[in-house]
Amino acid sequence: MPKIAQAPLGMSAESTHRWTENYRLTTQDSGRLFLMAGDQKVEHLNDDFIGGRVATDDADPEHLFRIASEAPVGCFATQMGLIARYGMDYSDTPYLPKLNSKTHLIPTAQRDPVSLQWQSMTQIRDFVRHSGLKVIGVGYTIYPGSEFEPTMLSEAARLIRDAPAMGLLAVIWAYPRGQAVGTREQDAHLIAGAAGLAACLGADFVKINPPLNTAGAMDGTLLGEAVAAAGRTQVICAGGSETGAPEFLQRLHEQIHVGGTQGCATGRNVHQRNQPDAIRFCKAIHAIVVHNQSVDEALKLLSPNT
Amino acid sequence: MPKIAQAPLGMSAESTHRWTENYRLTTQDSGRLFLMAGDQKVEHLNDDFIGGRVATDDADPEHLFRIASEAPVGCFATQMGLIARYGMDYSDTPYLPKLNSKTHLIPTAQRDPVSLQWQSMTQIRDFVRHSGLKVIGVGYTIYPGSEFEPTMLSEAARLIRDAPAMGLLAVIWAYPRGQAVGTREQDAHLIAGAAGLAACLGADFVKINPPLNTAGAMDGTLLGEAVAAAGRTQVICAGGSETGAPEFLQRLHEQIHVGGTQGCATGRNVHQRNQPDAIRFCKAIHAIVVHNQSVDEALKLLSPNT
Amino acid sequence: MPKIAQAPLGMSAESTHRWTENYRLTTQDSGRLFLMAGDQKVEHLNDDFIGGRVATDDADPEHLFRIASEAPVGCFATQMGLIARYGMDYSDTPYLPKLNSKTHLIPTAQRDPVSLQWQSMTQIRDFVRHSGLKVIGVGYTIYPGSEFEPTMLSEAARLIRDAPAMGLLAVIWAYPRGQAVGTREQDAHLIAGAAGLAACLGADFVKINPPLNTAGAMDGTLLGEAVAAAGRTQVICAGGSETGAPEFLQRLHEQIHVGGTQGCATGRNVHQRNQPDAIRFCKAIHAIVVHNQSVDEALKLLSPNT
Amino acid sequence: MPKIAQAPLGMSAESTHRWTENYRLTTQDSGRLFLMAGDQKVEHLNDDFIGGRVATDDADPEHLFRIASEAPVGCFATQMGLIARYGMDYSDTPYLPKLNSKTHLIPTAQRDPVSLQWQSMTQIRDFVRHSGLKVIGVGYTIYPGSEFEPTMLSEAARLIRDAPAMGLLAVIWAYPRGQAVGTREQDAHLIAGAAGLAACLGADFVKINPPLNTAGAMDGTLLGEAVAAAGRTQVICAGGSETGAPEFLQRLHEQIHVGGTQGCATGRNVHQRNQPDAIRFCKAIHAIVVHNQSVDEALKLLSPNT
Amino acid sequence: MPKIAQAPLGMSAESTHRWTENYRLTTQDSGRLFLMAGDQKVEHLNDDFIGGRVATDDADPEHLFRIASEAPVGCFATQMGLIARYGMDYSDTPYLPKLNSKTHLIPTAQRDPVSLQWQSMTQIRDFVRHSGLKVIGVGYTIYPGSEFEPTMLSEAARLIRDAPAMGLLAVIWAYPRGQAVGTREQDAHLIAGAAGLAACLGADFVKINPPLNTAGAMDGTLLGEAVAAAGRTQVICAGGSETGAPEFLQRLHEQIHVGGTQGCATGRNVHQRNQPDAIRFCKAIHAIVVHNQSVDEALKLLSPNT
Repeated sequence: MPKIAQAPLGMSAESTHRWTENYRLTTQDSGRLFLMAGDQKVEHLNDDFIGGRVATDDADPEHLFRIASEAPVGCFATQMGLIARYGMDYSDTPYLPKLNSKTHLIPTAQRDPVSLQWQSMTQIRDFVRHSGLKVIGVGYTIYPGSEFEPTMLSEAARLIRDAPAMGLLAVIWAYPRGQAVGTREQDAHLIAGAAGLAACLGADFVKINPPLNTAGAMDGTLLGEAVAAAGRTQVICAGGSETGAPEFLQRLHEQIHVGGTQGCATGRNVHQRNQPDAIRFCKAIHAIVVHNQSVDEALKLLSPNT
Repeated sequence: MPKIAQAPLGMSAESTHRWTENYRLTTQDSGRLFLMAGDQKVEHLNDDFIGGRVATDDADPEHLFRIASEAPVGCFATQMGLIARYGMDYSDTPYLPKLNSKTHLIPTAQRDPVSLQWQSMTQIRDFVRHSGLKVIGVGYTIYPGSEFEPTMLSEAARLIRDAPAMGLLAVIWAYPRGQAVGTREQDAHLIAGAAGLAACLGADFVKINPPLNTAGAMDGTLLGEAVAAAGRTQVICAGGSETGAPEFLQRLHEQIHVGGTQGCATGRNVHQRNQPDAIRFCKAIHAIVVHNQSVDEALKLLSPNT
Repeated sequence: MPKIAQAPLGMSAESTHRWTENYRLTTQDSGRLFLMAGDQKVEHLNDDFIGGRVATDDADPEHLFRIASEAPVGCFATQMGLIARYGMDYSDTPYLPKLNSKTHLIPTAQRDPVSLQWQSMTQIRDFVRHSGLKVIGVGYTIYPGSEFEPTMLSEAARLIRDAPAMGLLAVIWAYPRGQAVGTREQDAHLIAGAAGLAACLGADFVKINPPLNTAGAMDGTLLGEAVAAAGRTQVICAGGSETGAPEFLQRLHEQIHVGGTQGCATGRNVHQRNQPDAIRFCKAIHAIVVHNQSVDEALKLLSPNT
Repeated sequence: MPKIAQAPLGMSAESTHRWTENYRLTTQDSGRLFLMAGDQKVEHLNDDFIGGRVATDDADPEHLFRIASEAPVGCFATQMGLIARYGMDYSDTPYLPKLNSKTHLIPTAQRDPVSLQWQSMTQIRDFVRHSGLKVIGVGYTIYPGSEFEPTMLSEAARLIRDAPAMGLLAVIWAYPRGQAVGTREQDAHLIAGAAGLAACLGADFVKINPPLNTAGAMDGTLLGEAVAAAGRTQVICAGGSETGAPEFLQRLHEQIHVGGTQGCATGRNVHQRNQPDAIRFCKAIHAIVVHNQSVDEALKLLSPNT
Repeated sequence: MPKIAQAPLGMSAESTHRWTENYRLTTQDSGRLFLMAGDQKVEHLNDDFIGGRVATDDADPEHLFRIASEAPVGCFATQMGLIARYGMDYSDTPYLPKLNSKTHLIPTAQRDPVSLQWQSMTQIRDFVRHSGLKVIGVGYTIYPGSEFEPTMLSEAARLIRDAPAMGLLAVIWAYPRGQAVGTREQDAHLIAGAAGLAACLGADFVKINPPLNTAGAMDGTLLGEAVAAAGRTQVICAGGSETGAPEFLQRLHEQIHVGGTQGCATGRNVHQRNQPDAIRFCKAIHAIVVHNQSVDEALKLLSPNT
């Protein structure tokens, strides 16, 4: 059964109440989170939005908002600039502004990755007040092992303490990367360390890449170390690049029921489909994550006749 | 037909009103922007203002203000220092202070480009209040792919959230550049990524260099990816180095009507002409951008007898 | 006999009162400190919590809190994120938030060590007020000899002046490290220098690695220089990697009674045991540190029948 | 005829009034500025104050104040530390604190030049209020082309916007320098670019090194480009190393009447003379700069019997 | 005869009064300063406090406070951490907190020296208010010629402007050092430059290393250039490593009466002696510095029977 998290300590009664409301809203009262990840327009520039098997719908950023609005996602994570531009037309969606982002132009071989905070928490607070949107939390990426790790840990720790004071959740994207990490980016033990690090920072949820076994395949049992290491911080897995729906849902189910994760963060697998397909795919994810259904039940929701 | 933008979310009713007024003023109620770019005295030092075919008028910075004052430009973008020195005599011009600038002395081969914010937004606000000038927004250049990208993205994101709170628009100059970009600076797909990045930052307009095809020529159809990727952030193309008027206007018309851009940012092509020619040239640009006229109609405005 | 410290100068009467209460609480009125160190989930990621002879209990961060709650530790030092997440269920434990932490991914050969402050002292103060927890002080690690030494000394000095103003103690982890230190990390004279440096920063307690003699073994007499150099700042030794209980307790007794230290900081030797063993082990440590008992008396407490 | 500058925009009526008073005071109602430059005790350490043909008077910093007090200089530019130490005895002198300075110890071959702001503008404001001195403005040096250019441009731009708000003028020392500039430091076109850059920053006056022709000699006609590029920002030339008086005054006259500069900044040529000679030399400079006299008239003032 | 300094300009009447009181206290109404330097526990770690001919008393930091309390020193300069820990028992001593310090672990060959400010001036002010100690000023070390010179000059300049506003004196330790300085660290002309630089920063006193002649020996006549260059900023010489008393006092007398210095800063030569010897030695120094006595008179005070 999913764990229901308690609000972290250190905030006023009012903030605790708002945090709890946001937690219930984004986990849809299930304790599990279906985060729709839409930060790739910075992280991968336009590579994820055009070409190959990507639906033509995806060329327009509004595609992301249409999906998030009509599909049962727990929150839609993207950059503040887009939220401020489209939020007025999609005001029912729970939003999670991603506070730092970088492009992928500089390879690790040239320089270790670094991604700095964009908006201040004061700016986020003012935005929430003036926009009236359902902003349920904030997101931030750390790269443990990067030479710029100290700056990112410091920024993350500070905003994570400010977030609950504003009633907001904090989600950490934790990706070991850099010259010192080398090819170990998806090593189960290292990823477990990153998950524990996020817990020490105070994240409510930590998004990790699912670890791979020595054959390079995902294996739900490998997630156990990370889930344990994260303790009361809840683990969600990144979806990765586009995958066939049955395989994706099977992996997701295994992550949750074998690995013990508390949800998922899915981006390209959702928005690279056309709008109707994407919405159906979200419904299937939602069935597994929030309604605790089986893969077979979820797969039925993919049919256009549903 | 041009798109009419909505004010971004996250500001008070009063700021929204002021933003809307500024948007209407600078787009001349057309939804399209004719930005006169005059930041080259820092970006290129005196190279653009003397020698060769440059009109002798251009040696004096006041030339820029005379043109901007008498020609139907949507706004004149230049550094605060010049605005503070000439604005009292050209108080009807809509101004867009360019908040960061760098010289071109250091080649990319020596070090990746970096341009830092000059004035704080508080200083801009105080200037607007005391000067009484029509300051309609602020501008900032980012270099995606530079090793200094994180600092520039952070500065840009913060000022873009402060700008609407003061009723100001934000225009981002987005130029992929640096060791990691190499010769791909005008690649259509990379430029589309940069346009989408500016949208994620929250820019109202993004100024890009028009992409070139494999033969090194501009091709309006290549702009479509960037215009789509930018979504509700509107794309304007930089004018580039001095070009013959018919070719320039033809390209501009193609950018708008084939590529789907919402205006242009023109600098050297305007101010390197003498004052009467520059003003006539602006009228021709204005005809295409704001009045949606044909190239032939615009060309007629270039005649000294007009 | 243990020294009883006086509150440092420079705070209000109320803060002095609170500092003294915290000092008495954490030293259990003995003047000696048994600090349970639990910052390894960042410093060593998951390496200390799984595998080999590590008890399976240790995979879950709550293990640390269970031990700290039931064992007679003077304080439990860990990152704020964990305290905020578990403190509501373990509210009797005296806590010492560790304010900076880094991973061990980057070897010194790649770059000198640097660990930056995570939360601001204002955030700590707000946390204390809202949480109601017994936060008795703050911790910070310095690496004398690192190329980043200046930044860490500056951060440490500032927070150490802020801590007593909030009634909090300050504990400095002082580890000479970096290219310039090389293999001298556990040289007695250099460690004495580091202890004196911590005194100059104003630390109440300084945690050092016990110096080794030329044969690579601990020798309590080597501690004398550090204890003298630290003056009124009290020296506690790090416990190091897991060791057999008799040897550990013998060394601890020697550190205190030969070396003149005022306590110990123990982490892996405690939490890598299962819960009952860990609690018994803490009782043995407590007997030596706080009750001034002999090694034999302490060893008796390790029996499961106690 | 000299140009009389208008106050820049963006300040309150009271600040505008104070700026105008300061401008009239320092230009002695002439619109031209005779700036006595005395920042070399940092920029060149003691090299300019002892040895060779330097008058022994110059070993004592008070020499600078004695000259500035008794000679008709428009302002005396030096570091705040000296002004605070001698100002009480020389309270009639108009002062211009030089806000950044560096030594010349590090050659450009080792590292590009960088000079950071010393005092904050708030500290300057407090000093002015408490001291009662006639502080008419502030000075700052930029090195276009240095790898540290971005930081210096940002500092300069910010203090230049703060200065008029306090009624103070801003003088920029603009010296292209660095690996990317190489031997072009006194190239006329590059210096014109630097003058234009200072105008874009908002400087009231820009101090440049007079450009040299291909034979390495000063040529007043080469100044025209810089004077034009600076627009309403007024150009003054640095005096350079000690020169014979007739040659110096001839060059100054040529800079003003051929090159169009609005004054001069003279340091070593003044203070390396003994006090009576220095004062007479200043009177000669003053005659040319402020009273618009000929070189012959100015030379007469050098006679000890005058 | 000693010069009596005036308070620098730029502070309120009350602050001026407090500065004057502090100046009289620390110079013992003589205009000359006997600064007891005790910052070596950071600068040299434990190297100066143990071994060789160092008295065993020196192993304990309290030794410094005992001497400073019982000997007629003008002020005792050390780090804030020690002052806060021992000041309650030695409350009559005038203190000068040294605001920056670094260890000597990193050789200049590895990296140029850099020492950053530890406490903010606000923290110093709060400490003074709460502690009630006689804090008469603050100290800061600059390394002209280091690649980190700009940061240190900026920090120094800012705190020197804040110090008098709090009634505090400012003492600058000025040591040319770094790759660009090489072996010229004790060159008379370069040291004179450093003294003049400290004057430009606004130091009340500047501590320099006495210059050496080409034979590597101290020569009082070489100090003249520095004393002149410093102007109203008063020069005191560092004492250097331990020396025989007669030679030390002879050199000190020469520095004052030949070189024109206004006191001395003595550390190791004092505290490396046992307490009675150290106090007698201080009395001898005091006789020369404050009472203007001869070396012979001073030497008599070294006798245990005095």
